[in-house]
Amino acid sequence: MSLTVIGTVALDTVETPFGKIEEGLGGSATHFSAAATFFTPLSLVAVIGDDFPEKHLEFLRSRPINLECLQRLPGRSFRWVGRYEHDLNVAHTLDTQLNVLTQFKPQLSPVVRKNRFVFLANVDPELQGKVIDQVEGEPLIAMDTMNFWITSAKPALLKTLKRVHMLVTNEAEARLLAEEPNLLKASRIIRRMGPQTLIIKRGEYGALAFQENEIFHAPALPLEDIQDPTGAGDSFAGGMMGYLAQTGDASFANLKKGIIYGSVLASFNVEKFSLERLKVLTREEIEVRYRQFCRMTHFENVAHAA
Amino acid sequence: MSLTVIGTVALDTVETPFGKIEEGLGGSATHFSAAATFFTPLSLVAVIGDDFPEKHLEFLRSRPINLECLQRLPGRSFRWVGRYEHDLNVAHTLDTQLNVLTQFKPQLSPVVRKNRFVFLANVDPELQGKVIDQVEGEPLIAMDTMNFWITSAKPALLKTLKRVHMLVTNEAEARLLAEEPNLLKASRIIRRMGPQTLIIKRGEYGALAFQENEIFHAPALPLEDIQDPTGAGDSFAGGMMGYLAQTGDASFANLKKGIIYGSVLASFNVEKFSLERLKVLTREEIEVRYRQFCRMTHFENVAHAA
Repeated sequence: MSLTVIGTVALDTVETPFGKIEEGLGGSATHFSAAATFFTPLSLVAVIGDDFPEKHLEFLRSRPINLECLQRLPGRSFRWVGRYEHDLNVAHTLDTQLNVLTQFKPQLSPVVRKNRFVFLANVDPELQGKVIDQVEGEPLIAMDTMNFWITSAKPALLKTLKRVHMLVTNEAEARLLAEEPNLLKASRIIRRMGPQTLIIKRGEYGALAFQENEIFHAPALPLEDIQDPTGAGDSFAGGMMGYLAQTGDASFANLKKGIIYGSVLASFNVEKFSLERLKVLTREEIEVRYRQFCRMTHFENVAHAA
Repeated sequence: MSLTVIGTVALDTVETPFGKIEEGLGGSATHFSAAATFFTPLSLVAVIGDDFPEKHLEFLRSRPINLECLQRLPGRSFRWVGRYEHDLNVAHTLDTQLNVLTQFKPQLSPVVRKNRFVFLANVDPELQGKVIDQVEGEPLIAMDTMNFWITSAKPALLKTLKRVHMLVTNEAEARLLAEEPNLLKASRIIRRMGPQTLIIKRGEYGALAFQENEIFHAPALPLEDIQDPTGAGDSFAGGMMGYLAQTGDASFANLKKGIIYGSVLASFNVEKFSLERLKVLTREEIEVRYRQFCRMTHFENVAHAA
């Protein structure tokens, strides 16, 4: 097991124009894990309350997930209630109940400390830092964050950013973090804050990756039926990091493939509510869609290289 | 000369956060022609007034442009005054003076009628139809349009759409025309209106092309310095159609290359005001940037085809 994820395991109540789910299995670490385990086993570092439904635990156990660092604390599990209008890019948070999350102190077991790939999903940057304190060797560390931490905890965020290799964030958050509207300039500013690699998620427009002088422009698959965008970004990160951990290759050429796998997983994730689509997804379906991404972007180069 | 463009030749006064130009050379057919003539000679069908500056005519003469269908009428030339704020995607029109454009009756010479590729830039769909009336043989006809015609002249627009092979439009306009927010569904609705091929321009997010069951997702180059976005869409269309006319190949594989050349031309067009960048651009610079687009999107396919 060479991949660790720390993040939330949640009970999500979500309403979109296409339906509703009550206390479905959610959370950043859950969507990440469901996607990543198509490629590699992983270790989940998170917290749940004593009310956490057995059926959801069963799902986690059905995957190659090391649950020894999943803490179960007395109290209620973390809950999120959200709604999407017709613009599925915007989540309206109706309620957030942190519950046991407020007492979460991530503790990595001796085995988990040695994992070579680490993903810090979107939580308090102080918590993310406490995970970095515990890792051993020189793992590749990637992190996500959000506007809430950028505006309310910037000093802590900058401290954590210095210690990671890769930041995965969305377009508006990249601009906010860099305080620069031009994405190319923003990408340089952010990479001077620490991470050598920046991945900018752009929803239905795909993703951009920046590393040294390289840029990669990944497409998104135009989708006909999106039921629930919750967890799209986390399943993207899960597919990408899962593929990197499976191959053990963090070169830019391989990262591009990882980003496409991430895009593939995100495109499936949004087809149904919660994890319903990922639960029945097969590796063969993933490969078919990967090739669809290939066909969709491939064009012939001109005769000679520059 | 196998390519015809009909559109506007204008005097543009444009202000952006990066500067201002007074009565610069502009117009849809002008940007189109400046881009397309890197690939092929073309015939320009448009109108100017008797006040049209000689220096702008000289530029048109310096390119392989057949000007026999450029009418010069008594009166003032078409003028547009616009401003862009920090969001360069939105043009604020301050003034539009149609002037001689109101008397424009496009007339194709016997030579021009036989051109094999025709581009109808964004003008009144009735006018676009009058050009189609005059073409001979079976040329490939592509057209652009805008929200103004979609809302104010939809019956005429639908009539013209039935007679063209390709529509080039932006994302919001595609949704408006199809009355459908989902782009994939919208693309099918629009193609049932006539054009087999639909190209959706998405500004800094690139472009999408739809034809039968094929989708192509073209990237945009993240740009550091955009001085003036005016004419980006027209230089995109010019690069694309110019390449198609040069190669005489309208297959989907070749269209993809055309779209990339179009994206390349648009990316140069916005670097300076008016046509200042295209005036000094070289074919070698175009090829270098084309290869940059290649590198930016290329990723390895998985082992075997579906």
